[in-house]
Amino acid sequence: MTDIRDYLSRRAALILEDRSLRRENKLLQSLTEKEAAADRIVRYIRAEEAVSVWGVEIPHLFPGMEFLTSKSIIDNTKIFKIISKMPKGALLHIHLEATVDKKYLLKLALREPSLHVRTACVVTPGNLTTVLPEFRPFEEAQSSQCTSVTNAEYPANAWLPLYKARASFALGGPEGFDRWVLRAMSIDPAEVYDTHNNVPKIWQKFKDTFSATAGLFLYRPIFRQYIRRFLLELIEDGISYAEARIDFLPKYMFDVDGNENVPHREWVWDFGQAVNEIRTTLEEQGRGEEFMGAKIIYTTIRILPPEEIEWYLEDCIALKQEFPDLIAGFDIVGDENAGRPLTDYIKPLLAFKRRVEDLGLNLPFILHAGETLSDGGKADNNLYDALLLGTKRIGHGFSIVKHPKLMELCRENEIALEVCPISNEILGLTPSMSMHPLPVVLNQGVPVTLNSDDPSVFGAMGLSYNYFQVLVSSETTGLITLAQMARDSIKFSTLEEAEKRRATSVWEKRWTEFVEELGNGRGLP
Amino acid sequence: MTDIRDYLSRRAALILEDRSLRRENKLLQSLTEKEAAADRIVRYIRAEEAVSVWGVEIPHLFPGMEFLTSKSIIDNTKIFKIISKMPKGALLHIHLEATVDKKYLLKLALREPSLHVRTACVVTPGNLTTVLPEFRPFEEAQSSQCTSVTNAEYPANAWLPLYKARASFALGGPEGFDRWVLRAMSIDPAEVYDTHNNVPKIWQKFKDTFSATAGLFLYRPIFRQYIRRFLLELIEDGISYAEARIDFLPKYMFDVDGNENVPHREWVWDFGQAVNEIRTTLEEQGRGEEFMGAKIIYTTIRILPPEEIEWYLEDCIALKQEFPDLIAGFDIVGDENAGRPLTDYIKPLLAFKRRVEDLGLNLPFILHAGETLSDGGKADNNLYDALLLGTKRIGHGFSIVKHPKLMELCRENEIALEVCPISNEILGLTPSMSMHPLPVVLNQGVPVTLNSDDPSVFGAMGLSYNYFQVLVSSETTGLITLAQMARDSIKFSTLEEAEKRRATSVWEKRWTEFVEELGNGRGLP
Repeated sequence: MTDIRDYLSRRAALILEDRSLRRENKLLQSLTEKEAAADRIVRYIRAEEAVSVWGVEIPHLFPGMEFLTSKSIIDNTKIFKIISKMPKGALLHIHLEATVDKKYLLKLALREPSLHVRTACVVTPGNLTTVLPEFRPFEEAQSSQCTSVTNAEYPANAWLPLYKARASFALGGPEGFDRWVLRAMSIDPAEVYDTHNNVPKIWQKFKDTFSATAGLFLYRPIFRQYIRRFLLELIEDGISYAEARIDFLPKYMFDVDGNENVPHREWVWDFGQAVNEIRTTLEEQGRGEEFMGAKIIYTTIRILPPEEIEWYLEDCIALKQEFPDLIAGFDIVGDENAGRPLTDYIKPLLAFKRRVEDLGLNLPFILHAGETLSDGGKADNNLYDALLLGTKRIGHGFSIVKHPKLMELCRENEIALEVCPISNEILGLTPSMSMHPLPVVLNQGVPVTLNSDDPSVFGAMGLSYNYFQVLVSSETTGLITLAQMARDSIKFSTLEEAEKRRATSVWEKRWTEFVEELGNGRGLP
Repeated sequence: MTDIRDYLSRRAALILEDRSLRRENKLLQSLTEKEAAADRIVRYIRAEEAVSVWGVEIPHLFPGMEFLTSKSIIDNTKIFKIISKMPKGALLHIHLEATVDKKYLLKLALREPSLHVRTACVVTPGNLTTVLPEFRPFEEAQSSQCTSVTNAEYPANAWLPLYKARASFALGGPEGFDRWVLRAMSIDPAEVYDTHNNVPKIWQKFKDTFSATAGLFLYRPIFRQYIRRFLLELIEDGISYAEARIDFLPKYMFDVDGNENVPHREWVWDFGQAVNEIRTTLEEQGRGEEFMGAKIIYTTIRILPPEEIEWYLEDCIALKQEFPDLIAGFDIVGDENAGRPLTDYIKPLLAFKRRVEDLGLNLPFILHAGETLSDGGKADNNLYDALLLGTKRIGHGFSIVKHPKLMELCRENEIALEVCPISNEILGLTPSMSMHPLPVVLNQGVPVTLNSDDPSVFGAMGLSYNYFQVLVSSETTGLITLAQMARDSIKFSTLEEAEKRRATSVWEKRWTEFVEELGNGRGLP
């Protein structure tokens, strides 16, 4: 013990043992030379950019810092450019309502003459940042004395044709209208880091972005194009498969004729059509391997009284029976701190499990749980219920680091976490990636997949930004850790075994190419 | 599994198992009725105040929030008043230089006619908050053409008698002078939550408070009174024993004659004298049980080149031989992110261990380690070295949550963490107690003691504020958890076994009284 060489060998052994639960640990012992080189290159560039990019004297500048104020810096790093080219596998935690670039959504909306807009009061310079637009289609244009929401005579909640309201918007004209709408549908840095600086307030702003978007998203002509765009954006970032959560709380969406009468089965049908079309298009381009399809996780919201959830559970089963390849699982979403805990729904959820078993369906729970700072409160305790209910994965699981037994269950029973780093930061669970609990779960050997949650609200399209934040904020984590998470995203998806094998083998091929390009310098930015 | 009663009993069992590593778990099964009642009362009041005190609509208001902006609210809560009366056991992590109320320190200084002050430049309204005062005594008053640091003619670094400089301070007179000095010696909310809002910057401000204080603290007439006051402040807050870290980097302090020639053995002698006097005074007042004494943890700073640390290690051994009851252990302090890692000192530290063993001394390492956000960087890796070097406790260990094997070692080998919640928050490791990793280590069964670190810099005198922040920010943690930490503070001290038994039995007696008063309503505020 007093001999320094002995000390250093004991030290190396202790570090190895401490990290022995990490899932990429076995890989580290059997890396190809090229993988090892790629890992070293990335670590070298990361260390270099920690000084050249992040070591600059601007307040609060460090790798892994607040996403919204560092995005433009991230975009220009070599590490980000490298990560953008990495194959990512599957995206398993994303809310469809918050996926597609908001500018694109607005562009789709402006093409639809039947869309109308209204506000709860006249829009003025003073309330421009707080009054929300609401959208819906009408078969025939609604008439109103007034054509502008900025007109002092505007009657509260009067529907105006969208194109008219935009043209007559007095606060900056059509461009001002667009800025107002886009702002309502996303979160900007000042709102997160200043005015909305605690969890309940940021959640309120977050919900507002969903309300502002809902009327556009749930209009069938837009919905159909939206799904195509969603899939193309994923493929663009190296993601080859997705399980998207869709909020089925509204029982109908608006049809092209302006009537709110499109039932859930038509939503799923449209989703499946879009998947097939994208698949066909890519196959025609010889890019078939880039896309393995997409499924839906049926979700409803934890504001529902327990007796009302039964309708949704039955609805989910019916959709699964009609579209067995498209429905991946069931979840209840929404702010766990404010909403109902899983314990409120135990009875119907247990009944659902029995029904699903009796019917022989492959329809697991894939539950949000522990998206909270609480220790022993209801949102934290949702983790116990998610696991007891047999959840296939855990949505977030942010607070699971407090639970040794639950981490052991996840490790032993291979229940993966759907970790959403940037979402956690923006929703106020951690002020930066340096304080995110992800390293704890990685060292405990809990399976982890990285996810984007609500990329269009955060302006973090694709998965690369989330991969980036994780990579730069830990010296233990390296490219091989990210590769493990990408592999695990396929492994813990609801794909059939044969599909998983195919997806994995395609991923391995793309990974090998990526690693080789990086190693021979061609992949370097 | 599908029966709800069965589900609920499985749920209860899982929660119990998940928390089975917690150190207070055994106690929970054998509480006296009065302890159980006291715990319920505190949980009830905490829940009530979460709404009545913290549920108010002010930005960012929640239990466990930023200490500096919530201190005045905390002071008025019932929970704080209850906690203030609780017996706390031992205080094991505190830097003596940052303990005594700064106003009291300034009062002591103003009584010393030989003290002088200087600044690196003229103090102006523009630089008032950044220019630091430096103090030292001189046997004879230094003459200078100029009597004020605010005078445009003030020659940089000219020593002025303190009382003259104060009387002639042009920016608000003597009161303005006091405000300037007090501000330089402590941290205010704007500095932490705004201008100094990242770890390196807050550390710089933190070091500045030490420089501003050093010239007063290391003047023997002040030093002697300072230690007395330090001990009395602890006793006032229900702390009955302390192990104070003293920075022995300066080899001498200033004597009453203004010469810098008081060696370390005299410092320790003075400390021992103060301890004995306080003990005698309390015994005379029939309060002997309130105070079990105090010891010194010898520290130097991690800026030292490795070859220079040997002098300090030998110095520490010599002091231990002369004052076996006063020297508790050895530590290296300072910002782990900026300073040298323990690996730089392995050779001399191993040699020290051998020497200590050969000499048959009880002189353990009690090392700072893991006071960082890093994952796998040098500051985080200090944890491996602290444990391999056989540290008796770990100073902070903030990042140990990332290390399953190291938490296991602490649990199995009973190595306690010295956790300093408010210090961690103010130094930027966590934005609030809700994000502090303490619940993780508690649920892993790692022994924890709560500590104040630098109470006078933070304005968090005693231990009650730290106890408060821990109690209100977790629903799992209760009064019994705090009691476990208080018991553990004695158990993991360097007291001899017989002293520990006595300290524990006194603590148990005071605890029983506290619990009874709370239960019968007399202890309620």
